[in-house]
Amino acid sequence: MTGFGFQLLKKDISGARLGRVTTPHGVFSTPVFMPVGTKAAIKGLTPEDLTGAGVEIILSNTYHLYLRPGHEVIREMGGLHGFMNWSGPILTDSGGFQVFSLCKLREIDEGGVWFNSHIDGARCRLTPELAMEIEEALGADIIMPLDECTPYPADREYTINSMNLTHRWAKRCKEAKRDAAQALFGIVQGGMYADLRRESAGALVDIGFDGYSIGGLSVGEDKGLMREMVAAVVACLPEERPRYLMGVGAPEDLVFAVEAGVDMFDCVMPTRNARNGTLFTRRGKLVIKNAQYERDRRPVEEDCPCYTCRNCSRAYLRHLYMSGEMLSSRLNTIHNLFYYTSLMKEMQKAVSDGCFDEFKKRFYMAREQPA
Amino acid sequence: MTGFGFQLLKKDISGARLGRVTTPHGVFSTPVFMPVGTKAAIKGLTPEDLTGAGVEIILSNTYHLYLRPGHEVIREMGGLHGFMNWSGPILTDSGGFQVFSLCKLREIDEGGVWFNSHIDGARCRLTPELAMEIEEALGADIIMPLDECTPYPADREYTINSMNLTHRWAKRCKEAKRDAAQALFGIVQGGMYADLRRESAGALVDIGFDGYSIGGLSVGEDKGLMREMVAAVVACLPEERPRYLMGVGAPEDLVFAVEAGVDMFDCVMPTRNARNGTLFTRRGKLVIKNAQYERDRRPVEEDCPCYTCRNCSRAYLRHLYMSGEMLSSRLNTIHNLFYYTSLMKEMQKAVSDGCFDEFKKRFYMAREQPA
Repeated sequence: MTGFGFQLLKKDISGARLGRVTTPHGVFSTPVFMPVGTKAAIKGLTPEDLTGAGVEIILSNTYHLYLRPGHEVIREMGGLHGFMNWSGPILTDSGGFQVFSLCKLREIDEGGVWFNSHIDGARCRLTPELAMEIEEALGADIIMPLDECTPYPADREYTINSMNLTHRWAKRCKEAKRDAAQALFGIVQGGMYADLRRESAGALVDIGFDGYSIGGLSVGEDKGLMREMVAAVVACLPEERPRYLMGVGAPEDLVFAVEAGVDMFDCVMPTRNARNGTLFTRRGKLVIKNAQYERDRRPVEEDCPCYTCRNCSRAYLRHLYMSGEMLSSRLNTIHNLFYYTSLMKEMQKAVSDGCFDEFKKRFYMAREQPA
Repeated sequence: MTGFGFQLLKKDISGARLGRVTTPHGVFSTPVFMPVGTKAAIKGLTPEDLTGAGVEIILSNTYHLYLRPGHEVIREMGGLHGFMNWSGPILTDSGGFQVFSLCKLREIDEGGVWFNSHIDGARCRLTPELAMEIEEALGADIIMPLDECTPYPADREYTINSMNLTHRWAKRCKEAKRDAAQALFGIVQGGMYADLRRESAGALVDIGFDGYSIGGLSVGEDKGLMREMVAAVVACLPEERPRYLMGVGAPEDLVFAVEAGVDMFDCVMPTRNARNGTLFTRRGKLVIKNAQYERDRRPVEEDCPCYTCRNCSRAYLRHLYMSGEMLSSRLNTIHNLFYYTSLMKEMQKAVSDGCFDEFKKRFYMAREQPA
């Protein structure tokens, strides 16, 4: 097993970066988008579907897998890689975000967090040390420390206390982590205060991590504020480590954040929107249930080489959606993931060719045209 | 486009037959099992998944497609083959069975049947001539005439009247059918009366069809009665035409009916049971939610070469089922269809080798062992 590594290959004048991440389960280029396989599956897709859609690394959720089937089961089944039969790189979050967004009766103390399981209400405890133990059992290539995802809105005092707790937990995670083959990223918090964001980035860099995540954004704030926070954090992060913007986002957010110097992203948007019948195209979103597609023989996108566009008309996709067929979710998900991975590859090429600015113009111009 | 043809290649001493059906969209051997793609999709599966599971011909439902998206939409999209991107043979039923099983406020008259759509309650009419028009638009290789699926139980008088109506409708369908490339099968009715079953078979043979279906069975009667009816009908059908037992059934029913001389089958059992977490194996059924599979690294069947068994442990399949992941349905469906198509291929080989009796012994002996 090779360990984790990051090479910064090129930096565009705009700030966008081209990089290469090495993990025990393979290499991928950045900027990269990671689809979310919450319960050890990207809904409806096999590993072959994912590879066909250009996916190189997936994310899975510690919180859900801890509750069901339990990390010890997954450890016995050969970790997440063996369990779900995905041989490429995997990243797991720490469960913190889900505890703070899904669970009732949370009680945070210095040691960790008490919460009620969203499945059966059982009282559960998560600590920085347990998060490391669970993530070690899951065996992802890149793991996250337990953090408190600061709620939005939050006042300055709450945000400072929350951020400092996240820093102390991050340190404990680093100390508790045992598997040298797993990379551990720090998670920058600091709410919507640029100075706290900078302070958080500095504190985590002082502890020292294999990469740095930006957490606590895309939680309801407006896009301008989100972008301001991203810029503030990135300015304080070292060039030679990957930067990962958690839970973001829409295509235009990815373009913004890549230009700001972010390398990695995850979001449920392409997969969840697919299940709701919303398809991403260069020309914007296409809502497949619309009556105008009833007899439309064209694929979702004329020049898209994804499985769905090569094989299915809009008319068929509309029929599957209207009929509640699960094949609808699968075919739409394949297209949306292909769109996202292609967008990232286009940005990689734009940085490589030194023309990110032109890429951006093309990206926004295409959206002016009808889908 | 080649037309429809049936060659009887071999008949086993037991009565089981090996045949070959030629259609405009390809050739398949019989006995054959046709999975049900009610709404122009086998739930969750692409054509590639179907081919991988050994499927050679699929069935789709006229009733559902007539209501949504409408047969004219499908005609414009290149028929069912173009619409759902399946290039192999397709069989469509006439919609009669669904009208009689799903719809409220049915009124049957000589001309046809009035019914309320199960989707929005709209008052609809189906006639033998319209069934032919719809099935022509759908463009299947093998089509069915409108029939009344005699309810169970039904008294002798009702059954006679119902059967005779089915015969008159069958004749009208034959007269109304326009596309010579489509094969039309007659549907034998006659309820649970062996003499009426024989009479029905004779009447349909007199009209003359490309093949003969046995309808109105597996509607709640006990298995002995069903088998008695199948035997009565088959004895009155010509050797040189394919026989199709509609809506049947469990693996042991297929083995029985093949031995009785039936060539074609369809049933929702492998696909529906897959979605309910029941997997078919040579050793009987395996209920994947059972706790005993929580840490079971084995595939569903040790020696099964299907995609699911090559790639997934029982533990993973159980997790997907317990978590409500749609990938569960898909992986289970692939295995169950592979089981069904393999069973048919084994029976083809047994007839070819002249050892159907030995096959049957093996089939029943395997079921004595734990799954």
